[in-house]
Amino acid sequence: MAPESAFEELLALLKRAHVLGTIGDLLGWDEQVNLPAGAAEQRAAQHAALAEVQHAAISEARMGELLVVLEGTEGPPGSAVGMDSGQAAIVKQARREYDRATKLPVAFVRAKAAQGSRGYHAWARAKAENDFAGYAPVLEKNLEFARREAAYLGQGENAYDYMLDKHDPGLTAAAVDRLFGELKRDLVPLMRAILASPVAARARGVGERLRGFPVEGQRHFLREVTERIGFDYARGRIDVSLHPFCSGTGSDVRMTTRYNPDQPLDALFGSIHETGHGLYEQGLPAAHVGTALSIHAGMAVHESQSRLWENQIARSRSFWRYFEPRWRAFFPVQMEGLSSDDLYLAVNAVEPTLVRVDADEVTYNLHIVLRFEMEKKLFSGELAVADLPVAWRQASRELLGLEPVNDREGVLQDVHWCDGSFGYFPSYCLGNMIAAQLWSRWRVLRPDLEADFSQGDFSWPLGWLRENIHAQGRRLSALELVRRATGEELSPRHLVAYLQERYGSIYLT
Amino acid sequence: MAPESAFEELLALLKRAHVLGTIGDLLGWDEQVNLPAGAAEQRAAQHAALAEVQHAAISEARMGELLVVLEGTEGPPGSAVGMDSGQAAIVKQARREYDRATKLPVAFVRAKAAQGSRGYHAWARAKAENDFAGYAPVLEKNLEFARREAAYLGQGENAYDYMLDKHDPGLTAAAVDRLFGELKRDLVPLMRAILASPVAARARGVGERLRGFPVEGQRHFLREVTERIGFDYARGRIDVSLHPFCSGTGSDVRMTTRYNPDQPLDALFGSIHETGHGLYEQGLPAAHVGTALSIHAGMAVHESQSRLWENQIARSRSFWRYFEPRWRAFFPVQMEGLSSDDLYLAVNAVEPTLVRVDADEVTYNLHIVLRFEMEKKLFSGELAVADLPVAWRQASRELLGLEPVNDREGVLQDVHWCDGSFGYFPSYCLGNMIAAQLWSRWRVLRPDLEADFSQGDFSWPLGWLRENIHAQGRRLSALELVRRATGEELSPRHLVAYLQERYGSIYLT
Repeated sequence: MAPESAFEELLALLKRAHVLGTIGDLLGWDEQVNLPAGAAEQRAAQHAALAEVQHAAISEARMGELLVVLEGTEGPPGSAVGMDSGQAAIVKQARREYDRATKLPVAFVRAKAAQGSRGYHAWARAKAENDFAGYAPVLEKNLEFARREAAYLGQGENAYDYMLDKHDPGLTAAAVDRLFGELKRDLVPLMRAILASPVAARARGVGERLRGFPVEGQRHFLREVTERIGFDYARGRIDVSLHPFCSGTGSDVRMTTRYNPDQPLDALFGSIHETGHGLYEQGLPAAHVGTALSIHAGMAVHESQSRLWENQIARSRSFWRYFEPRWRAFFPVQMEGLSSDDLYLAVNAVEPTLVRVDADEVTYNLHIVLRFEMEKKLFSGELAVADLPVAWRQASRELLGLEPVNDREGVLQDVHWCDGSFGYFPSYCLGNMIAAQLWSRWRVLRPDLEADFSQGDFSWPLGWLRENIHAQGRRLSALELVRRATGEELSPRHLVAYLQERYGSIYLT
Repeated sequence: MAPESAFEELLALLKRAHVLGTIGDLLGWDEQVNLPAGAAEQRAAQHAALAEVQHAAISEARMGELLVVLEGTEGPPGSAVGMDSGQAAIVKQARREYDRATKLPVAFVRAKAAQGSRGYHAWARAKAENDFAGYAPVLEKNLEFARREAAYLGQGENAYDYMLDKHDPGLTAAAVDRLFGELKRDLVPLMRAILASPVAARARGVGERLRGFPVEGQRHFLREVTERIGFDYARGRIDVSLHPFCSGTGSDVRMTTRYNPDQPLDALFGSIHETGHGLYEQGLPAAHVGTALSIHAGMAVHESQSRLWENQIARSRSFWRYFEPRWRAFFPVQMEGLSSDDLYLAVNAVEPTLVRVDADEVTYNLHIVLRFEMEKKLFSGELAVADLPVAWRQASRELLGLEPVNDREGVLQDVHWCDGSFGYFPSYCLGNMIAAQLWSRWRVLRPDLEADFSQGDFSWPLGWLRENIHAQGRRLSALELVRRATGEELSPRHLVAYLQERYGSIYLT
C-alpha cells in the first residue's frame, strides 16, 4: 500500500473519530447548561453509548494497519522524500491515541464514561449539601478507574505521571515538582510583602463597594469585551453554568460563566479567561480536523491562552483606560464615588481566598500547588480519600493562611475530580508560567503594545498568538512550543518578574 | 437458541439504538435552539456521523438473527406458551425498523442526514429572504431522496404511501383522501357560516386589542399553565426557536416556543400544544425503552395529544374560568377594558390566515388539506417544484379565500419539507379528528369534566390519557388504538360536531 493513500485513509478515520468526539463535547456542554434534573441517568447512558462508539472509531483495526504502513516513512529534514514534519506529527499523535484506545477494554471505557457523568451529579449534590462523606465513594471509584487505566497502558507503577501526561504529553511529577518548587520559593515572600502593604486593605475595601451590578448589564458588558478582543460569536456562544468552562472547537466553541450582582468582576474575568480558551480553539487550523495539525498543544498551553487574556492583558492599566468609560456607562450608579484608581485596584486586588476560581493571580498559584500535593499523595497512597478534608484544611492554612470552615469551600469546591480528571490542575500553574513568558517576549517584540490596548486594539497579540501558537496545533510539545516562541526554556522566573512588576507598582511603592 | 435469551439480547440491542437516537434528538434540538450561525457545516457532519452509527446499530446482523429466532413463537391468545402480545409487538416493530435500515445503504443514510441539516439552514435563509428559487434545488433533492428511499424499500411505485406510512404505520393516501373528503364536505359550510356571522368581525377586533404583552410575563404565565396541566419540568424544559417543536422522550423532553408581544396567545397556545406532545412523551412507559412498548403510536396520535390540550381543553370556557384571574394579574394594563367574553372570543377567534401555525382550529384543517394535495401531486409528478408557489397561491385562494403576496407566507412558511419530512402534514388533521373523538368519549365518561377545569384540576384527562393512550405505547396501530379507546372507528364526524358545538355557541346563536 502506498504511503500517500494510507495517509489519506488515516485522515478520514481521524476526522470521523473527531466528529464523534465533538458530539460528546455537546453532550457535556448541554449537561452542565441545560439538562433537566431528572435526566441524569439518561445522559449517563448517552455518554456511555457514545464513548463506546468513539472508542470503536479510534481503535479500528484498520487504523493500526495504516499506522504500521506510515511509521518510519519520514524523510530526512528538507528532503522531498517521505512524510514531512506535519505528516509525521499526525502519525505520532494518531499512534498515541490508537495505543491508548486499543489497550483499554470497551467495557472499561463505557463504565468510566457512565461513572464520570454520575460523578458530576454526585459532586453537584455533595457540594450543595456540603456532604463530603456522601461523595467520597465516587472519588474512591474514580481513583480506582484512574489506576486501572494507567495499568492497562502499562503505567501501573507511574499512575500519576500517566495522568499528567494525558493532559500534557511528556510531563512528569518530577518536572512539575522542580518548577513549582522554584516558583514557591520566590512567590511566597512576594505574597507576604503584598499582604503586609497598607494598600492591600484598601483594595479589599474597594472590592466590597462593588455591589448591586444588574446581571443584564454584566451580560452586555462582557459580550462587548469578549467581542472586542476577538471572540467570533458567529462561531461560538456564552451561557451560564455552575462551573465556568469552554468546550467545543472550530466553528462551535461554547463558553460559560456565572453571575453574581455583588461580584461583578468575577463573571467578567471568568468570561475573559474562557475567551482565551475560545480564541485558541477558534484559531486552530481548520484543515485536517482531528489530527495533530488542528488540535491544541496540551492543557498547559491552553491555560496559558486563557490566563494571558484574563491577567496580563485584561488586568492591565491600558486595558481599563479603554474599557472604563464603557463600564461606567453600564453602571453609573454602582460606580458613583469610585475613582479610576479604585477600579484598577479592585481589578488587581490581592487577598488570599478559600476558593481557587475566585483567587487573585498572585495567590492562585498556591491553590494549584496545594492540589498537586494532594493528587501526588492520593496516587502514592500517602493520603486516603477519607482523610482529604483534614489534609486540605491543613495545607490551606499552611499555604494560604486560611482554613475552610466547610468542605464546600474546601475539598468539594472544584469540579475536576468528579469525572476522574486528575493531573489537570498543574496545567493551570504551568499555563501561568507560559503566559508570563510570552508576555515578557511581547514586551521585547512590541514595546508599544499597551498603547494599542488603550485604543481598544487587541489585534497585535491575537495575530501573534494565531501565528506562533494557534497555527502550530500539536506539532510540538508544550515545552518545545514555548522554546520556539520565546527563544528560551520554560521557567517560572518570568511569572515572578511579571507579578513583581505589576503588583509591586501597586502595593510596594 | 432459546427464545427467552434471544428476547433479552434483542432488548439490549434496541436500547442501544434508542440511546443513540436520543443523542440525535439532542443534536436536532440544539441546532434549532443554540447553534452558532457559522457551525452549520460542522453540525451536518455530526448528523451524518451519528446517522451512520445509528444505522449500524439498528441494522446489526445479530438483530436479524434474533428476529428470525423470535418470529413465529407467539403463543395462542391466553396461552402461557410463547411470546405474549407485548413481546410480539416488540418483535414486529423491531422487524419494521430492521428491514428499513438494512435495505438502505449506509452512504445513502449519511448523505440524506447531511442534506437534511443543510436543508434546514437553506430553508431558514430562503424564508428570511423570501427566496423560493434559491430553495427549490433543496426541495428537488429532498424529493429525489424520498423517492430513492421508497425504491430501496420496494415501494418505488407508491412513494407517497410509503412517506405516510413512515409517520403512521398502515396509512395510505386513499384512506386520507376519504377521511379528508368527508371532513371538507361538512367543514366548509360551517366555516362560511361562521365567517358570515357579525361576531367574527368582533373577534378580529378583540384580537387586535391584545398588544404590548411583555415577553417575561408571557414566559411566566405559560410556565404556570403548562405546569398546572401536568408537564414535569424536572424531566423537560422549554426554550425559544424559530419554529416551535417538541423533541426528546422519557426524562428529557424539550419543547420550544416563540414570543411576540403583540400576539400573546400565539406563544401560549403554541406552548400548550407542545405540552400535549410533551405529556405524551413523559407518559410513555419507561421499561424497555426503544421498543414498541415505550414509543408513541405514530404522529396522528401524537398530534391528537397536542390538539386535545391546545384546543378542546385550553380553549374551553371552563379553562379560562380558572386561568383568567392569573392572566389579568400578569397583564393588568394590557387587559384594561377587555371583558371575560372578549378574552374568550379572542381565544376562539376564527379568521382565515395565510400561516398554518397561526390558524384557528376551524380553518386549520383546510391548511392541511392544501398541503396534502400539494404533496400528492409532487409525488405523482402532476406538479413540478418550480410550479409550487403558483399552485400554492391558487389552492390557498380556493380553500381559504386568501392569497399570499409572498412565499414567506406561502410555500416557504413550514419547516417540514426542508429535511424531507413529506407525508407528515396529514397527521395534524387526523390528530384533530382523534382529539375530537376522545373528547366526545370523555363527555360520556365524565359529564362534569369541565367543572374540574374551572377549579384548575386537569388530573382526570391526564390520568385517562396516561392509561388509555400513553401506557399503550405502540402495541396497536393508531386506528386500533382509537377503536379501543373510544369504542368506534375513526371518523371526522366528532370533529365537525365539536366545532359546531363550540363555535356555533359563539358565532351562530
